[in-house]
Amino acid sequence: MLTDRRLRICDFLSRMNMSGAIFCSLGSIRYLSGYVAPIETGPNPFEAGPPILVLNRDGESELIVSEFEEQAARSRGKVDNISVYSCYNIYDTSMRAVSNLIGLLLDSMKRLRIDSGSLGVEAEYFPAALLWGIQEKLRDVNWRDISRSLESMRAVKDEDEVELLRRVSEIASWGQIVSRQLIHEGVSEIEVYSLVKAKIEEKVGARTPLLADMISGERTWEVSGHPSTRRLRRGELVICDLVPCVDGYWGDSCTTISVGEPSEEQKRLHEIVISALKKGIENVRPGISAMKLDEVVRSEIKRHGYDYPHHTGHGLGVTYHEEPKIYPSSNTQLKPGMVLALEPGIYIKNVGGIRLEEVLLVTEDGAEVLTKYSKEL
Amino acid sequence: MLTDRRLRICDFLSRMNMSGAIFCSLGSIRYLSGYVAPIETGPNPFEAGPPILVLNRDGESELIVSEFEEQAARSRGKVDNISVYSCYNIYDTSMRAVSNLIGLLLDSMKRLRIDSGSLGVEAEYFPAALLWGIQEKLRDVNWRDISRSLESMRAVKDEDEVELLRRVSEIASWGQIVSRQLIHEGVSEIEVYSLVKAKIEEKVGARTPLLADMISGERTWEVSGHPSTRRLRRGELVICDLVPCVDGYWGDSCTTISVGEPSEEQKRLHEIVISALKKGIENVRPGISAMKLDEVVRSEIKRHGYDYPHHTGHGLGVTYHEEPKIYPSSNTQLKPGMVLALEPGIYIKNVGGIRLEEVLLVTEDGAEVLTKYSKEL
Repeated sequence: MLTDRRLRICDFLSRMNMSGAIFCSLGSIRYLSGYVAPIETGPNPFEAGPPILVLNRDGESELIVSEFEEQAARSRGKVDNISVYSCYNIYDTSMRAVSNLIGLLLDSMKRLRIDSGSLGVEAEYFPAALLWGIQEKLRDVNWRDISRSLESMRAVKDEDEVELLRRVSEIASWGQIVSRQLIHEGVSEIEVYSLVKAKIEEKVGARTPLLADMISGERTWEVSGHPSTRRLRRGELVICDLVPCVDGYWGDSCTTISVGEPSEEQKRLHEIVISALKKGIENVRPGISAMKLDEVVRSEIKRHGYDYPHHTGHGLGVTYHEEPKIYPSSNTQLKPGMVLALEPGIYIKNVGGIRLEEVLLVTEDGAEVLTKYSKEL
Repeated sequence: MLTDRRLRICDFLSRMNMSGAIFCSLGSIRYLSGYVAPIETGPNPFEAGPPILVLNRDGESELIVSEFEEQAARSRGKVDNISVYSCYNIYDTSMRAVSNLIGLLLDSMKRLRIDSGSLGVEAEYFPAALLWGIQEKLRDVNWRDISRSLESMRAVKDEDEVELLRRVSEIASWGQIVSRQLIHEGVSEIEVYSLVKAKIEEKVGARTPLLADMISGERTWEVSGHPSTRRLRRGELVICDLVPCVDGYWGDSCTTISVGEPSEEQKRLHEIVISALKKGIENVRPGISAMKLDEVVRSEIKRHGYDYPHHTGHGLGVTYHEEPKIYPSSNTQLKPGMVLALEPGIYIKNVGGIRLEEVLLVTEDGAEVLTKYSKEL
């Protein structure tokens, strides 16, 4: 599967008359090499930059990582070669990790015969220090920014990716089930979030990045926000949007849960969002445009006099927001194998915000819902 | 405090004949602007790059962030000006976040009169795409990489930083106390890690990045590692190294805990590490070199016939490994106001690994221990 994906990129490089490319966004690294870089504690101060994948037009590939990443990269990286730069030596403080990395990168570019001509680079992620180091030695490279080029190529998922997205959808659903059990009067947003994350990690068996909106009461009409120390009160709503990353693939899910018995008005708004989400699911099929799908879902909300200040949905994969982007302005057409989240909402001051979400796989003639958890208020 | 720090950097810029500088490592952003960028879920796919601080030699400063960061940056950023670039518009999918960011950056460089001449940049973190965007308009800038220049300037902490490091040391200590309560036969490494993180977040009241070695049994003689599904067995040791980040400042702590009664051999090794750590604490004072301190601690381990394959310690601050680096090869001299961790260890195959750590503030005549938790086996 990884080889197929790299060959698709090679086709693209050929069409663009590029002899090869340098990838360094963590999404592309996962997508093209299988290696999942850790993200939860930010850049490692020992390292000289992100992991780097060098690929030539013939499909030959090399992954360059730090010695701290070596073990994980060797166990997971499916590439022709893995090179490891040194960045830690207590007996040599003059050691320059960046020079070491640049040296390996130059070697790799020579080995893969892409040390001149037109070359792609994910320039939005590639550090200037590495670029300078290469430019000093290779003056004949014509660099072209391909930071955004892979996104549309990644929109239709391969079989192994669909399995990974099934798995992370299960994990997101599990998070929602746990969250519903934990939400009650008096508990704080951060307590719910932290315990949900712990239960997710127990289930996954490893540290699991988790992006989350966990907002209650008046915070729900602000649409999104990190968990705070705010404690839940009876009669309030809680928006619980859980976006976990398992094995480098991002899931998504959102429910709205009432603390105690919801008001009639909250129930009425909830019914509208339920029906909009249902409309969306019914309309997901190959050929429909993102624009049309957005309109179908949004109009169900609009005909009751409401709207939401955000997209109707988005694709999922090695990032948590990618094509197909279900925006009013998007011409993207859905195709079998795309995986997308739909998440309509209504946010009314002094009543509450409500958002509900499902993740779907576009099939040959419709959609399969990958997330499974209660949408009850 | 922030103004003082920026003025120190201005002195450095003047000495280096630079008219200003562009900072974008998350550590420098925290250090010079007060804004703490979220790290736990990796780069935000909407954004065009990291937050950027522009500073001129006169001390004028501007922070540039995405619209997703605006609220947090405005509430925390102590700079002369904050600019916000747009990166999300569901009605305009052609919107290019990178162009927007480059536009603001160019405006800022003009406003601060640093659009020509010699300019510093944290090139190990600055994306090539932004560099190209600027170079296209400003051809007369002579760029100089200052990625590693701030590290030694940051080694002596300001008063507000000492308070932040006290606070995060308390949190790390709290994590150790919780960890000791949770460690028992049958529980898995990941379960302990996840619950410790949840208890830390409950105490902090916000999401809290936590780097951790959580390794048991045969994994302890591999020195470090992420928590796994491995379950603790009687007679084993567990190394619990907790490195939390609170308000942008990193703490550190490490204990080794036996599951059930430790063996005589484990007790003996533990006593040696205890005495090495004690020796280190006694010797921390202004004027001692990192090299000497490393030797004092390491020789206490060596005289029993052991050694450890890592540093004796390191500074803490806006990164979790910085000056003063307590390495055998380091000439750095300790000064009052430095904050450092000491962490000697012994790792013996088929017996177990042991590491113990304290964080210390260098005072006028010695050291104050900031971490407070049991070092018992």
